[in-house]
Amino acid sequence: MFHLLKTNGKARRGQLQTAHGIIETPFFMPIATKGAVKTLSSADMENLGASILLSNTYHLLLRPGLDAMKTFGGLHAFMNWQKPILTDSGGYQVFSLSRINKTTEEGVKFQSHIDGSYVFLTPELSMDMQKAIGSDIAMQFDDVAAGTSTRERYEDAMERSLRWAKRSKEAFRASAGATLSSGHRTIAAVPYDSIAPASALFGIVQGGIYEDLRSRSIKGLVDIGFDGYAIGGLSVGEPREDMFRMVKHCSDQLPQDKPRYFMGGGMPEEIVENVKAGVDMFDCVLPSRNARHGTLFVWNQDPSTIDFDNVDPLNPTWYSCLRITNEKCQFDLSPIDVFCDCETCKTTTRAYVRHLFSVQEILALRLASIHNLRFYLRLMEELRKWSGG
Amino acid sequence: MFHLLKTNGKARRGQLQTAHGIIETPFFMPIATKGAVKTLSSADMENLGASILLSNTYHLLLRPGLDAMKTFGGLHAFMNWQKPILTDSGGYQVFSLSRINKTTEEGVKFQSHIDGSYVFLTPELSMDMQKAIGSDIAMQFDDVAAGTSTRERYEDAMERSLRWAKRSKEAFRASAGATLSSGHRTIAAVPYDSIAPASALFGIVQGGIYEDLRSRSIKGLVDIGFDGYAIGGLSVGEPREDMFRMVKHCSDQLPQDKPRYFMGGGMPEEIVENVKAGVDMFDCVLPSRNARHGTLFVWNQDPSTIDFDNVDPLNPTWYSCLRITNEKCQFDLSPIDVFCDCETCKTTTRAYVRHLFSVQEILALRLASIHNLRFYLRLMEELRKWSGG
Repeated sequence: MFHLLKTNGKARRGQLQTAHGIIETPFFMPIATKGAVKTLSSADMENLGASILLSNTYHLLLRPGLDAMKTFGGLHAFMNWQKPILTDSGGYQVFSLSRINKTTEEGVKFQSHIDGSYVFLTPELSMDMQKAIGSDIAMQFDDVAAGTSTRERYEDAMERSLRWAKRSKEAFRASAGATLSSGHRTIAAVPYDSIAPASALFGIVQGGIYEDLRSRSIKGLVDIGFDGYAIGGLSVGEPREDMFRMVKHCSDQLPQDKPRYFMGGGMPEEIVENVKAGVDMFDCVLPSRNARHGTLFVWNQDPSTIDFDNVDPLNPTWYSCLRITNEKCQFDLSPIDVFCDCETCKTTTRAYVRHLFSVQEILALRLASIHNLRFYLRLMEELRKWSGG
Repeated sequence: MFHLLKTNGKARRGQLQTAHGIIETPFFMPIATKGAVKTLSSADMENLGASILLSNTYHLLLRPGLDAMKTFGGLHAFMNWQKPILTDSGGYQVFSLSRINKTTEEGVKFQSHIDGSYVFLTPELSMDMQKAIGSDIAMQFDDVAAGTSTRERYEDAMERSLRWAKRSKEAFRASAGATLSSGHRTIAAVPYDSIAPASALFGIVQGGIYEDLRSRSIKGLVDIGFDGYAIGGLSVGEPREDMFRMVKHCSDQLPQDKPRYFMGGGMPEEIVENVKAGVDMFDCVLPSRNARHGTLFVWNQDPSTIDFDNVDPLNPTWYSCLRITNEKCQFDLSPIDVFCDCETCKTTTRAYVRHLFSVQEILALRLASIHNLRFYLRLMEELRKWSGG
């Protein structure tokens, strides 16, 4: 499934094979939480150069639900996206979003943040839902400890995550080969007579900021055996140095021949540093969320000239964050970013985008999202060149 | 400026020449109130087949303001829209939107609905602002009586509108030929070294639902002489029969060689009826506003097969309004409209658009807006074929 093509130090340039095509690594996954990247269509994501999207089992389980997703024949058909999809297992969201949750060895009982109804999410249900989604890369269901937990809680969560990893794999295997019924029509001339559930399953390394817990987690997961490994439970408020240290620690111990996915982070300089530590896959809400709040990533230099060997992981000089709502943008008739090739930068000015934010036009959110996502996708293009071409 | 090509009964098929190109009549103008059609970009409007946009002097005067618009070199450059723009004069908005307003012979003093600041809008300021916008078709500043007014108030408003029509024309002429300075950059490979203010000015017929007042208004306006004539003060809650009667009355008396514009209306069947009465130009918030509220226009038959000679002006059978949020759409994997050629209908399903509305994704508003605007623009294409090809 994973082919390592070249390395640059510990950084890896590779290819990930999925049922919906090959993805060049390292890559970034825009987040289509509820079946759409906020403000953007699947065609927009294609135009931006996204090679894979991430969607959330938790959100799709609540709406439209498991049965609906089966009826639709999976998320690819539902949202008309032909490239790969990775799904989070719901482990993180039951803690961060649900109103009330209670963890037992069996699973997590939680109250929907939407209508207050009770749902009991288990490794088995998570796998069922990810299969119904037709995910190309499914994640194990894990027990996620809050960022402020004690070592004991981190250890407990890590151990339970290992047990749930085993159950996830068994449930995943049991349903492998099954073909979901498809009730949907053919759209955009791409026939979907059935969805191919030849998806991969990733384990998730837990253990907080404790090297020994992380090592035990990795050993346990590798013993079970997964198609790839994610580093979870970071980017939750810990100091950056701890995060970098943990990613390096994990990346060094994870199998060379499997893809490595750092979950949920982060700022551009963090992605660069973690690529240099040997991580292949990233996702983050930052580009979209910042865009909707009017904070835009701007290159300080042509991105093809960035010397990634010598960038500061804590104080990057190669990009800036522009507050587009700032008064200084009022009469600025230059594009948001002179080095950017996105539709927003090619067709609008800072003054216009600022005006749209000022008068609360929805188009502002779209134009900003397009730009910020393109910034991240372009960063990955440059990092792929740097790590092996 | 206006060339009548053919007629079908009283319906007219023509061409309107503007500084930004020829527009085929009859046509519909999507509304870019604050410099953007809600949820959509200028490129989107081009893709939808819009041949002209309408923008609002009132809104643009408040934000970004007269000086800013001059700095930007006009609205075409600001919003990167190369086709014609018509601007409303602000006469309607000072009554419908401003918090406090006081009309004197000089103009209307009103309090901004945004920040409470006082603005004194006169025919002269309206013309200045429409010039700064670089409008291809400017509207006279008019005194608009509320829909529930007495005959005396309608008469007063109509008479004042005539006096303001004269002042509008004088102010418009005085600034004609002036070239606004341009500080903007070149975008999308279209140079804007100066904006050509060779715009047209339209008079607005007022007089409520009184034939004699409307006739006096028309005579007064024609005596002053305008490039085109709008029928104002309707679609404000009066019975449809009154509206149709007034439009027919006005259209019959307006000059044959000038374009006729029915302001602010309306539903598809009203547009059809008013085209048949001899109206050439339309605008309406309905397609966009309905879209954002989940009400979608759907053809009941291939629109090229509609027999416009025999449609009921009050109870149309050739289209329906679909409530996309209705439960019946939950598993409906057909497109919103099988006869529609818009991006939404070509790439999504009712079930998906309903889901996006359910989970409050902004993309829902965009997909719905694209469809409804395409419906109106397509209707005009069919009406152009019917009225002369």
